[in-house]
Amino acid sequence: MKKEFDVKDLNLAEQGRWRIEWALKEMPVIRSMMDRFHKERPLDGVKLSGCLHITSETANLARALQTAGADFVLTASNPLSTQDDVAAALVSAFEIPVYAIKGEDTATYYQHLNAALDHRPNITMDDGADLVSLLHKERSAQLPDIIGGTEETTTGVIRLRAMAAKGALKFPVIAVNDADTKHLFDNRYGTGQSTLDGIIRATNILIAGKVFVVAGYGWCSRGIAMRARGLGANVIVTEIDPLKALEAVMDGFRVMPMNEAAPQADFICSATGDKNVIDKHHFEIMKDGCCVSNSGHFNVEINIPALEAMAVEKRQPRAFVDEYQLADGRIIRLLGEGRLINLAAAEGHPAAVMDMSFANQAMSAVYMFANGKNLDNQVYSVPKEIDQEIARFKLESMGIKIDTLTPEQETYLNSWEEGT
Amino acid sequence: MKKEFDVKDLNLAEQGRWRIEWALKEMPVIRSMMDRFHKERPLDGVKLSGCLHITSETANLARALQTAGADFVLTASNPLSTQDDVAAALVSAFEIPVYAIKGEDTATYYQHLNAALDHRPNITMDDGADLVSLLHKERSAQLPDIIGGTEETTTGVIRLRAMAAKGALKFPVIAVNDADTKHLFDNRYGTGQSTLDGIIRATNILIAGKVFVVAGYGWCSRGIAMRARGLGANVIVTEIDPLKALEAVMDGFRVMPMNEAAPQADFICSATGDKNVIDKHHFEIMKDGCCVSNSGHFNVEINIPALEAMAVEKRQPRAFVDEYQLADGRIIRLLGEGRLINLAAAEGHPAAVMDMSFANQAMSAVYMFANGKNLDNQVYSVPKEIDQEIARFKLESMGIKIDTLTPEQETYLNSWEEGT
Amino acid sequence: MKKEFDVKDLNLAEQGRWRIEWALKEMPVIRSMMDRFHKERPLDGVKLSGCLHITSETANLARALQTAGADFVLTASNPLSTQDDVAAALVSAFEIPVYAIKGEDTATYYQHLNAALDHRPNITMDDGADLVSLLHKERSAQLPDIIGGTEETTTGVIRLRAMAAKGALKFPVIAVNDADTKHLFDNRYGTGQSTLDGIIRATNILIAGKVFVVAGYGWCSRGIAMRARGLGANVIVTEIDPLKALEAVMDGFRVMPMNEAAPQADFICSATGDKNVIDKHHFEIMKDGCCVSNSGHFNVEINIPALEAMAVEKRQPRAFVDEYQLADGRIIRLLGEGRLINLAAAEGHPAAVMDMSFANQAMSAVYMFANGKNLDNQVYSVPKEIDQEIARFKLESMGIKIDTLTPEQETYLNSWEEGT
Amino acid sequence: MKKEFDVKDLNLAEQGRWRIEWALKEMPVIRSMMDRFHKERPLDGVKLSGCLHITSETANLARALQTAGADFVLTASNPLSTQDDVAAALVSAFEIPVYAIKGEDTATYYQHLNAALDHRPNITMDDGADLVSLLHKERSAQLPDIIGGTEETTTGVIRLRAMAAKGALKFPVIAVNDADTKHLFDNRYGTGQSTLDGIIRATNILIAGKVFVVAGYGWCSRGIAMRARGLGANVIVTEIDPLKALEAVMDGFRVMPMNEAAPQADFICSATGDKNVIDKHHFEIMKDGCCVSNSGHFNVEINIPALEAMAVEKRQPRAFVDEYQLADGRIIRLLGEGRLINLAAAEGHPAAVMDMSFANQAMSAVYMFANGKNLDNQVYSVPKEIDQEIARFKLESMGIKIDTLTPEQETYLNSWEEGT
Repeated sequence: MKKEFDVKDLNLAEQGRWRIEWALKEMPVIRSMMDRFHKERPLDGVKLSGCLHITSETANLARALQTAGADFVLTASNPLSTQDDVAAALVSAFEIPVYAIKGEDTATYYQHLNAALDHRPNITMDDGADLVSLLHKERSAQLPDIIGGTEETTTGVIRLRAMAAKGALKFPVIAVNDADTKHLFDNRYGTGQSTLDGIIRATNILIAGKVFVVAGYGWCSRGIAMRARGLGANVIVTEIDPLKALEAVMDGFRVMPMNEAAPQADFICSATGDKNVIDKHHFEIMKDGCCVSNSGHFNVEINIPALEAMAVEKRQPRAFVDEYQLADGRIIRLLGEGRLINLAAAEGHPAAVMDMSFANQAMSAVYMFANGKNLDNQVYSVPKEIDQEIARFKLESMGIKIDTLTPEQETYLNSWEEGT
Repeated sequence: MKKEFDVKDLNLAEQGRWRIEWALKEMPVIRSMMDRFHKERPLDGVKLSGCLHITSETANLARALQTAGADFVLTASNPLSTQDDVAAALVSAFEIPVYAIKGEDTATYYQHLNAALDHRPNITMDDGADLVSLLHKERSAQLPDIIGGTEETTTGVIRLRAMAAKGALKFPVIAVNDADTKHLFDNRYGTGQSTLDGIIRATNILIAGKVFVVAGYGWCSRGIAMRARGLGANVIVTEIDPLKALEAVMDGFRVMPMNEAAPQADFICSATGDKNVIDKHHFEIMKDGCCVSNSGHFNVEINIPALEAMAVEKRQPRAFVDEYQLADGRIIRLLGEGRLINLAAAEGHPAAVMDMSFANQAMSAVYMFANGKNLDNQVYSVPKEIDQEIARFKLESMGIKIDTLTPEQETYLNSWEEGT
Repeated sequence: MKKEFDVKDLNLAEQGRWRIEWALKEMPVIRSMMDRFHKERPLDGVKLSGCLHITSETANLARALQTAGADFVLTASNPLSTQDDVAAALVSAFEIPVYAIKGEDTATYYQHLNAALDHRPNITMDDGADLVSLLHKERSAQLPDIIGGTEETTTGVIRLRAMAAKGALKFPVIAVNDADTKHLFDNRYGTGQSTLDGIIRATNILIAGKVFVVAGYGWCSRGIAMRARGLGANVIVTEIDPLKALEAVMDGFRVMPMNEAAPQADFICSATGDKNVIDKHHFEIMKDGCCVSNSGHFNVEINIPALEAMAVEKRQPRAFVDEYQLADGRIIRLLGEGRLINLAAAEGHPAAVMDMSFANQAMSAVYMFANGKNLDNQVYSVPKEIDQEIARFKLESMGIKIDTLTPEQETYLNSWEEGT
Repeated sequence: MKKEFDVKDLNLAEQGRWRIEWALKEMPVIRSMMDRFHKERPLDGVKLSGCLHITSETANLARALQTAGADFVLTASNPLSTQDDVAAALVSAFEIPVYAIKGEDTATYYQHLNAALDHRPNITMDDGADLVSLLHKERSAQLPDIIGGTEETTTGVIRLRAMAAKGALKFPVIAVNDADTKHLFDNRYGTGQSTLDGIIRATNILIAGKVFVVAGYGWCSRGIAMRARGLGANVIVTEIDPLKALEAVMDGFRVMPMNEAAPQADFICSATGDKNVIDKHHFEIMKDGCCVSNSGHFNVEINIPALEAMAVEKRQPRAFVDEYQLADGRIIRLLGEGRLINLAAAEGHPAAVMDMSFANQAMSAVYMFANGKNLDNQVYSVPKEIDQEIARFKLESMGIKIDTLTPEQETYLNSWEEGT
């Protein structure tokens, strides 16, 4: 008997399937994991509900969990990111129930969340803590079924930690974002490439020889700075943390306050996590034609309301470019409406980046199933061994071998660490 | 009285105008030139016919020539590259007659060429020598009107040189492609960025950590190698010229024959100007999933017929990607059907690159008008002073000042060169 | 009355003074600190004994402590690194008692250590925990005088942590090596530059186009890889940690086991902290002429005894290069006798790197004086504020300003972190 | 019977021999050439006189010529660069007569030049045109013996071209400096590495994070800029040629006039070929502690007399560093007395660079012997085939293979070039 589901149109399944297969090619870690899961079936008999962006990469995570023996259902963590063809393919080609329709209204969204919990999961998999919230607020009767959960995002983790701090969290959750194989790679390499990709798609401007200002020198912004330099730009970094600022200097970048950088900039891209990093007084001193974009959290990094108020005219000469003409004639170009430019004008993280992120999800679910009973109702980091194993899988998938310690070397290291 | 023209739809003019204005922002050299032309009117009274790709950048060249006083008409050098909205805007917003409709048939194409010559030009501006050919072959009666011409492409120049060698060329032509401000910049920086842009748009694959093979180490391929490295790839170069190969080695790249490089490659991009650089015996040894693309002349660099013959199945998982499945199960991905990937999957050269190229066109036309009578019926390089002046304009437009020799330094240099 | 001392020759003082002043120019953080210490005298009345390498940089640390009001004496932490002219200048130009003579024997070494403790310090400053050891083992009567200590090296910290774990440590110690302004900078930038400097001084071989193998991808080895690439080498990284290996891949380096890398290498440099990383079976497969060096801890990283045993002849064609001829005719070149190549063949860390390290020492001493009474007898990290302040001093010294959070931004960040 | 010679001390031969062997290891092209010359003896019976710097690299050129069958004698082109141990080894180990003593006076210098011509050469090999000059001015009776000559330096070539222009040159000369395998490699890679090497040896200052100004963007200065960036500097370029300036901008460097760059600089290095590039008005605006050096021709690039005049005090804190204290207290540091810093403070070009340069010398001598009778009394470039062959030898010596054109590709290229 076929399970229930709610997707837009099953006729889209064929197209969705090709996209899922394309993504799988770029997800070698998930592929390796599927090989192992096929033999070991480490989630045999577990009921698992996921609330994630319904994309071709997520589809492959779903397939991996299915291969591991899990009875898995999926709902959307964001009504806008659902790929309807992928949802259709999951249902009809892979028999994984999905509740997600792109652009669904709020009522449908919650109906779908509830459908995912009607599955009576033992493990939850969240991207924003929505399943966990709903379970704790409205469906606490189900809590005894739950062994534990996993959470993809920083935002979700903050919410869960607040709950744990008050003793309100009723089962353990693993914070996937903390894994080195996640944040060291998707922020630096994923955001780096896709941000420049978004900017070039939006503008088709030659980067070489341009002054490119990056706000921040955290992992994301350092990825952006590295790639802008790699495309020939002269990069300026702004920071508030003197240590990071100093690293930027030692890496050969110019560092200065934004009000000195802005008048020189051909491009400014903010990735700080804070608001109004590019503010009214910066617009006032920018060069004519400066391209402003955001690659941080949310679209608050750029003070768009101030720009709107300053403008005497606004037009869209290209998709993803709004030109704001100021009273003095200068034009400021806002890319992608100030939303994350790699999502707005390009395609977000490449599959290879999601591969490691989702491998952490899958391995964390397996770990939770095996060890959840012994964990406290806290937020846990991904165990170091999982991180190492994922890195190892990834290297193998690239055909790369590395050294191992000889017994003699191991002894030496240990003795030295013991100080003898 | 309005002049004649033949474009698709004048209603497209408004959209075309914005695109022309956007491009002008990125064409500061043409802008500077327009300022000067406005004062000096160096082409006053000259009749000029251009046969060029009808794009927003060409539109700005046309405006510059108009500002210089030229009576200018424009026809398309390629039926496929015409931007109909730009053509419409040229006619209705700038009163420049255009004969070009995207996708026009061969008969119309020649009718348009003839219309451009009905203008009875004194100077021709070619991108492939079509106007010059037609004049010599079918409209030689007009030859006495002609002072000279300019030619944009290498292909055209080869044809013209062959004519000149046989004494068949009846007026002087300046080869714009030879200018340093053209070939040093569009090949290296333009092709470099736009090739990677095309590959990323086609595949959305993370470049960092991938093995990227570039065939060739000429200006184009060195631009590609530089940008692939700048995006985190491990780059291998193949060459047939030992000197260029050695430069690639000294620049830190690995160099090896294609049959050693192909089995390691995640990406192979050819930019050599020769045929079958990526051939049947290379497909036979590639890794599963290898992405093959071309950024050289024409689509002969990749032996596509061989690939077609080897494939047991072919499908298109993404736009601009054809997957060829071979009998042994491996998949080879051909990007952009083997055509220039920066045109097929991205937007070709950024405007800033065309800016310098077209500035050479405009300045060469001015030079031809002033000096054509004294030139032989040969192919000439762009005069060094024009190259220098364009570079100077470009630097000024970027707000960059440079040093000048003091009289003392000039004396020293001269005395030293004289060996005294 | 002049204090006691034991240095080689006071006549060397003039020369030593110039070297101290040269170093001070490159130690802007220490200079800034001296300005502040001059006003605030935060160590007024404190007796301080230091056991450090007696170099021109250490001399400036001593001057800073003196300016802060400390009554400071200095003994050598290593009999070989003492710069006799600097020792003389400290005594005669700056009136800081020093007990150190280059090449002194073990008896003198201990006599000097005891002299430094005869000073009856309140705070100790160690580079290898020798003062702390002597105090605990032989001079425990003095322990009540001690407020606390600081320790420069990882080796010392390991020893101290072992003592603390057993409850044997009788006063608190700050581990200076943990400071970000120390290990992020001296390992990456200091070791990176000085290692390549040492290799080039030893060999004068052109790095561009060579295959350069770096063992390890920790902070030191990553600095070496970065600089080798910056000099045009094609860099291969070997690792045992899959995560670091993966980072190296994503940074565009080739990664493979040493037994695959060794046969390709023109240079191999090890910086892992482990022994026999370059071992007998690697020598057996190296190319003729391969240059082997060490930039890690101690000279155990290269299995020199094995190399000695394999060699049929040994000679020294240049200073710091030993050529070992093997039975099959191949020559292996060992640089700097396998000792840290940046010390053996170059001058160790540049002063700018020691500047931040010693600023941590000085600030930690001040912190210890102010807070030591409230600390447990444990090993402490350098307080985050000190790290930040040193980075800030350093930026100021370079004339670099950075942004500060607006109140609005601070509020936003806090609210977000609180999850509201 | 032993030939004549004049060297300092034959007892130095053993040490000289090791240095010659070391250099030979790094001169694979000369080694390959020796193998071929051994079989083919292309200079059998030719008398050849060389006037070159007497270094270990030159010694290997001499051995190669000897192997080719030449009867070769050697005199010094510069009295200061002679390595006396190498001279001794050439005489006693290799039986090549040498007339050169380090520091010899002018009379001895000319006596040695004459001794080299007493050898009655058929071919001359010059580094500054001294043999050619002497032959034309004082020993014209010998001119009929001469088939032709080779010349290493630009300075020499300028002198020879002036002679040729006046019809005064009496035999053909090949200008070795024009070869791509010479100037593309020694200027860019050789000067690049050795200049930074010289600066670091002189100062031991950390380059990372420093502002490094390079005057010029020719081959030498571009090598310097590339290496300074590779060591982590923030590089500014100054230029007088707008085209080169534009290339520097597109390569991501900042470009500005020297009077804007000087106040920001931690380092300034000039490599322009002109005088007073770093002048009085630049010293006036430099930061305290700025390190000024020269890597161009001669020591005129820096206006040292002006600096001397401005200084109130001068001292030498380190070898190769002169500190000039100005009236306002600022210190300007002049490195290596303004002479070429890579020679003054380091060891000049690595042997690998001289390898290709001297391979051009040897092959040009062979070419001259075979073809000199058919050449005019002009200055010739190195034939393209020699350039290609040397590059091929070099690649082979590195174990690097490259592709060759298939017949089909060759046909395609030719047909295309013919425009058919």
